[in-house]
Amino acid sequence: MRTQVGIVGAGPAGLLLGHLLHRAGIETVLIEARSRAYVEERIRAGLLEQGTVDVLTATGVGERLRREGLPHAGIELRFDGEGHRIDLAGLTGKRVTIYGQQEVVKDLIAARLAAGAPLLFEAEGLAVRGLDTDRPRLAFRQDGREQVLDCDILAGCDGFHGICRDAIPAGRLQVFERVYPFAWLGILAAAPPASHELIYARHERGFALATMRSNSLARHYLQCRPEEDLAAWPDDRIWAELHARMAGRDGASPVKEGPILQRGVTPMRSFVVEPMRHGRLFLAGDAAHIVPPSGAKGMNLAIADVVVLARAIEAWHRGQGLALLDAYSSTALRRIWKAQRFSWWMTSLLHRFDGGDPFEHRVQLAELDYVCRSAAGALTLAENYVGLPLEAG
Amino acid sequence: MRTQVGIVGAGPAGLLLGHLLHRAGIETVLIEARSRAYVEERIRAGLLEQGTVDVLTATGVGERLRREGLPHAGIELRFDGEGHRIDLAGLTGKRVTIYGQQEVVKDLIAARLAAGAPLLFEAEGLAVRGLDTDRPRLAFRQDGREQVLDCDILAGCDGFHGICRDAIPAGRLQVFERVYPFAWLGILAAAPPASHELIYARHERGFALATMRSNSLARHYLQCRPEEDLAAWPDDRIWAELHARMAGRDGASPVKEGPILQRGVTPMRSFVVEPMRHGRLFLAGDAAHIVPPSGAKGMNLAIADVVVLARAIEAWHRGQGLALLDAYSSTALRRIWKAQRFSWWMTSLLHRFDGGDPFEHRVQLAELDYVCRSAAGALTLAENYVGLPLEAG
Repeated sequence: MRTQVGIVGAGPAGLLLGHLLHRAGIETVLIEARSRAYVEERIRAGLLEQGTVDVLTATGVGERLRREGLPHAGIELRFDGEGHRIDLAGLTGKRVTIYGQQEVVKDLIAARLAAGAPLLFEAEGLAVRGLDTDRPRLAFRQDGREQVLDCDILAGCDGFHGICRDAIPAGRLQVFERVYPFAWLGILAAAPPASHELIYARHERGFALATMRSNSLARHYLQCRPEEDLAAWPDDRIWAELHARMAGRDGASPVKEGPILQRGVTPMRSFVVEPMRHGRLFLAGDAAHIVPPSGAKGMNLAIADVVVLARAIEAWHRGQGLALLDAYSSTALRRIWKAQRFSWWMTSLLHRFDGGDPFEHRVQLAELDYVCRSAAGALTLAENYVGLPLEAG
Repeated sequence: MRTQVGIVGAGPAGLLLGHLLHRAGIETVLIEARSRAYVEERIRAGLLEQGTVDVLTATGVGERLRREGLPHAGIELRFDGEGHRIDLAGLTGKRVTIYGQQEVVKDLIAARLAAGAPLLFEAEGLAVRGLDTDRPRLAFRQDGREQVLDCDILAGCDGFHGICRDAIPAGRLQVFERVYPFAWLGILAAAPPASHELIYARHERGFALATMRSNSLARHYLQCRPEEDLAAWPDDRIWAELHARMAGRDGASPVKEGPILQRGVTPMRSFVVEPMRHGRLFLAGDAAHIVPPSGAKGMNLAIADVVVLARAIEAWHRGQGLALLDAYSSTALRRIWKAQRFSWWMTSLLHRFDGGDPFEHRVQLAELDYVCRSAAGALTLAENYVGLPLEAG
């Protein structure tokens, strides 16, 4: 087999790259190790920046998103029992949209299948070969048969635990990493959201976030220890803790209870590799970088990477050479580091740091106070939250 | 002896407090352990916020400041060899003014002497007594005689190393502190400034700041180790290091050399005590808090404290009771913590952290890039640099 661009991973990054390249008349083969059901059902991020919505809409995969997505014009920061609204739309003219990552995946899979573009699930033993040549290859087994896909370009969109990053020879990537001393205990519950907008709560007991997947599906998170044992968290304890951290000064909690459908512990990590490229293999999304979820940036960054990468591949395909591909990593990284900064900052701003000194704690409160009372402070949060322009670097 | 308000310390805080209270018809005695020559000559801070200039001007001690001060409409942030101007005036409508702290002190001493208000220098063995009563006392020796000053209210404006904070019983103050792993090597040179505005340079070799005291007196700083030995810094090395850290991409340095008149090493520390009051003793300025000099906030915070304290004492004097005095600490601290946050942030943004991980380093560069390219980012720097409004908390 041979194709122009071999794409590994049917998450938002790989699927959108395939979609954009297909629209540009470029041949792609998309190979995924998991099953279609798995990638369509796994619960991940759920908040789209305005720019992400715009890309999906402009390329014809925004129809269901437009119908089912929940646009939000603001978020609430809650501390000392008081809520402070950050007016995202008023400050920036932009909104964010609640729409699950798996819904984006479903829409993009449907579009790819409708277009008849190759999409292989459950590829076994996936391996990258020939990275030191101009004709990299993907080797895998399917239906028990060994396959080799020859490519001009390989796109590694296979996530943090994927094979593509690891295929790059040792010592060629610089790794930047921060592991936080806490995690998030997340639940999905058949209950109305706590509010019509997200609530980010800083509390002495730890951070809490009340968000949603729809008007009848609440998604809540509690700061917990990285090694937290879910067995120690029966439903009652989860709700009691959410109420305590979300309560206003009057003690009233906005959180509504309901059957808990899913629960899990999400580790918190900042991670970047540089460069996001080796030879003709280009990394995009979680394969190259991870952000803590506090800034809701993970999927949006993956989309932004892919927009830059697709533009570079299109230029190469039009015969304009490798210049944009050579610039891909540095172009994407500039924006990625700003999102890393923002995600680190939101994490620092809102979590309880058990090892933190009292000075740090007071600075954290002063920063929250500043962000909520200064129009400029609020705008720095808002413009990063809705997403910096792609071009802004 | 007896007075209404006993003030310890003839720095900007104590002198301005005496000045404001005198104008309000309140009796004060100001007592200073050092000589007049010492306090009038010691080189300290040199940058006044707009609000500080406004207070001095509005109360009749801004005449020489208006003539000799250098108003600045912007500052430059320099990194990767490129300068980025933060347009303070354009962003905030406010300016900062270069005018030495010792000049403010001279002006306030002159005003106090002209008003005939008591001002005692070289008081020996100063001690606070009766802090558990409504009639605190200052004991000291002058010209070999033991003196006691009975007061209704005591103001501790005697700096970080003063006696007033230490007079408060152990365990009554909560201390917040951060000591930084670097210091500033500062010089005063008979040379023109590097630029008409301040240059804050982040460089792999360490932070540098080029500022001035006048158009013919340059003041420069170099990040150094806290235990730096000045003997290891002959003039040549200082100038070479300043040139290296300030150089643009073309290698040209804006720093102009000249005879070095003074040199010293300044430690970097963040420090706050809470509350800023015990009984009828009220702390203001460095007696209660220290900021690293990166944000140029030290003297300005002292002035802001004193404005709040003077207002509270005036209310008490008018027979309105202790309510404002009781609120003094929390009112002042709200603004102080914002200035602490800003000073910590400016320090973090611009210094080389030898123990820092590579992730932190990239985040620092992303933050600089963000601050210089986002109007909101620039405004958060600018509005804090020119000084948050007193009322903004």
